[in-house]
Amino acid sequence: MRGGGRVLTSNLPLSGARLWESLMAYAAIGATPKGGCNRQALTDLDAQARALLQREAEAAGATLTADRFGNMVLTRPGRDASRAPVAVGSHLDTQPTGGKFDGVLGVLAGLEILRALHEAGVETEAPIALVNWTNEEGARFSPPMMGSGGAMGIFSEAEVLAKTDSAGARFGAEIARIGWAGAADPTALQSLAAYFELHIEQGPVLEREGLDLGIVTHALAQHWFDITVTGEDSHGGSAMAGRRDAMMAASELALAIERAALDAGARATIGRLALHPDSRNVVPGRAWFSLDTRHDDETLLAALATRLRAEAAGIAARRGVAIDIADFWVSPATPFDAALAQRLRDAARARGIAHRDMPTAIGHDAVYVARRLPAVMLFCPCHGGISHNEAESITPAWAEAGLLVLADAVLATAGIAKD
Amino acid sequence: MRGGGRVLTSNLPLSGARLWESLMAYAAIGATPKGGCNRQALTDLDAQARALLQREAEAAGATLTADRFGNMVLTRPGRDASRAPVAVGSHLDTQPTGGKFDGVLGVLAGLEILRALHEAGVETEAPIALVNWTNEEGARFSPPMMGSGGAMGIFSEAEVLAKTDSAGARFGAEIARIGWAGAADPTALQSLAAYFELHIEQGPVLEREGLDLGIVTHALAQHWFDITVTGEDSHGGSAMAGRRDAMMAASELALAIERAALDAGARATIGRLALHPDSRNVVPGRAWFSLDTRHDDETLLAALATRLRAEAAGIAARRGVAIDIADFWVSPATPFDAALAQRLRDAARARGIAHRDMPTAIGHDAVYVARRLPAVMLFCPCHGGISHNEAESITPAWAEAGLLVLADAVLATAGIAKD
Repeated sequence: MRGGGRVLTSNLPLSGARLWESLMAYAAIGATPKGGCNRQALTDLDAQARALLQREAEAAGATLTADRFGNMVLTRPGRDASRAPVAVGSHLDTQPTGGKFDGVLGVLAGLEILRALHEAGVETEAPIALVNWTNEEGARFSPPMMGSGGAMGIFSEAEVLAKTDSAGARFGAEIARIGWAGAADPTALQSLAAYFELHIEQGPVLEREGLDLGIVTHALAQHWFDITVTGEDSHGGSAMAGRRDAMMAASELALAIERAALDAGARATIGRLALHPDSRNVVPGRAWFSLDTRHDDETLLAALATRLRAEAAGIAARRGVAIDIADFWVSPATPFDAALAQRLRDAARARGIAHRDMPTAIGHDAVYVARRLPAVMLFCPCHGGISHNEAESITPAWAEAGLLVLADAVLATAGIAKD
Repeated sequence: MRGGGRVLTSNLPLSGARLWESLMAYAAIGATPKGGCNRQALTDLDAQARALLQREAEAAGATLTADRFGNMVLTRPGRDASRAPVAVGSHLDTQPTGGKFDGVLGVLAGLEILRALHEAGVETEAPIALVNWTNEEGARFSPPMMGSGGAMGIFSEAEVLAKTDSAGARFGAEIARIGWAGAADPTALQSLAAYFELHIEQGPVLEREGLDLGIVTHALAQHWFDITVTGEDSHGGSAMAGRRDAMMAASELALAIERAALDAGARATIGRLALHPDSRNVVPGRAWFSLDTRHDDETLLAALATRLRAEAAGIAARRGVAIDIADFWVSPATPFDAALAQRLRDAARARGIAHRDMPTAIGHDAVYVARRLPAVMLFCPCHGGISHNEAESITPAWAEAGLLVLADAVLATAGIAKD
């Protein structure tokens, strides 16, 4: 049987237990006292995890290629050398107070597939490539998803390599310092045949609904803003009449945004706010805040931005303030590959794993990859939706369910060679 | 004529022009490019202004006493050495981007009274004391009104002297460094016979109503709070349902506070706000903000606090957050002395100066002084109510009106000696 058909891997020695042991072993590299992991991109700890992955994947018959962003590609050859590799991946870097599973699960599930194929001596038609993308988190170097975004041509190589951390260290120099500046052209990864990424949900939906797996069909459109309200400073003792209070205007706009987002079925978050002059007894003359809006539907997200501007104009007129609304970042809605998603659904159904379709509201390497080649994600539930947090946790059973469905779909895509 | 009767000073050579020249001369000490003044407490510039005041007051027949807070008292003897001095004063320190008039006007109007008495050779019954309080502004050393608060026993001497600025310099050490650590017991100032303070309004009321003078009858009650809203962090991509968004809860509470203050005839200011974890794509799990409330009437201010707690409880229940409301600072409503206020009113009426009664919603040295002895303030209009700002401005005519009424009331209180 070749290519896109239904291939079950039930005979492969895929081991949820071995995957869990690996998760715990990698979590020890940068372990925090509270049970999380601090393994930020391009640190010595990152290098330590990378070396371990290289050793373990090579032991499973894969060969390393590193590109100029330090992205690691560990390829296990297929029977048909003319076929582009089918890739599985995610990232090994973490937030400063991150957990054990965000990113790591996807990489180590890919490693487990390589190990099972190697152990069983199974040959695939297409090569299988395990990818560890550099700096997904964006914690040390901003923006996030730099390795995948650079490889997919969303960012230029020069701009990525020139980014600096808060101490002034250059991204390019740090890749070299930890010994991971490869020779390969990162954009070569745009010719992968397909890309699969298993990741924790980082939301509470699957657990709340008692499901073991999410099939991720698309990434939400995002529109982020910088909003500045300018009124006039006055003394905290001044009469209320005649005030042009930027804080009260910002509060009114915040609630209008919340209402508009609820009406539109969107998501809206004000995560940062700063008042000026920031003194207890001074009516703030200026308020700045960030706004992050997301929606399945780009048209409805655009309508939300229009309503935001109209609400702001009304508040500005009533309160005698000026409200400036500037775009900070826009990301289009990104569909994942429908055929790959169907392959995941088929595998989950065949294995009797309770699942649902869902979007990702969060950026992932797969979202950039999906702009260039067929890509898909699957979500593993995580307790309480807690993530980017040392308390992040999943169950071994959830991890195994994700592994099995991932493996089925990857092998269905790569094809199992028949003698 | 002795004591409290009606004494007009129309024969004294009080000079609005000389007062204005003095204002401009002191403004040169710490002058800023934008026309304001930066002469913070206990800096070398403060020492320069103090030395000038000492020289000029001594030239007008006054004698210096400095106390352990560096408060300067320049006393011109009266005929009756058994009587306690009638004091006039304010402060020479400024905000970092302060104006030429806040505080300085009250000190230099006092100096002008000493000069006029000296020039005319007029003897008063009671001594006249000109006071320059140390660190009224609280810009370099917090809290404000440290010199007067310490002298009146609101703060202990040890706590005042131990305060440090942002660079770690101690208040006590800085008084000594600039050469103004006196030997006098500051609490001796509690036996002054009366205290008068002319100050700019720092609000827009007098100018808006076309008046030249405000008779300040009382200081508003103030109640300052620390408010903490605790919800739960979640990802900016999470669904709106189920969020416990501290920022949205804080916004709702801010607007409820504004409505409650308007209903109660109070003043409410949220001057500071901080979100946690302060990230664009994280729903804030915590919001902290300051709240400053003020009212003429302590009972209505207490009712406002009760309503604040009720509104907070409702919002907390509806939004699944916790709201903690902690007292930060409480200042009682402080009446000024009715007899002294009447003396100011009589003088303004006799001189045909357009005036009104008003409260101060702002802290002043006189507010602490009024807790221990008969004290009163008068306000000079200031353009646009702008203050704590390099653009702070008044007219020479306003300054002169304040000077004349101040002098009349001070002399009516001290009494003019008759041969």
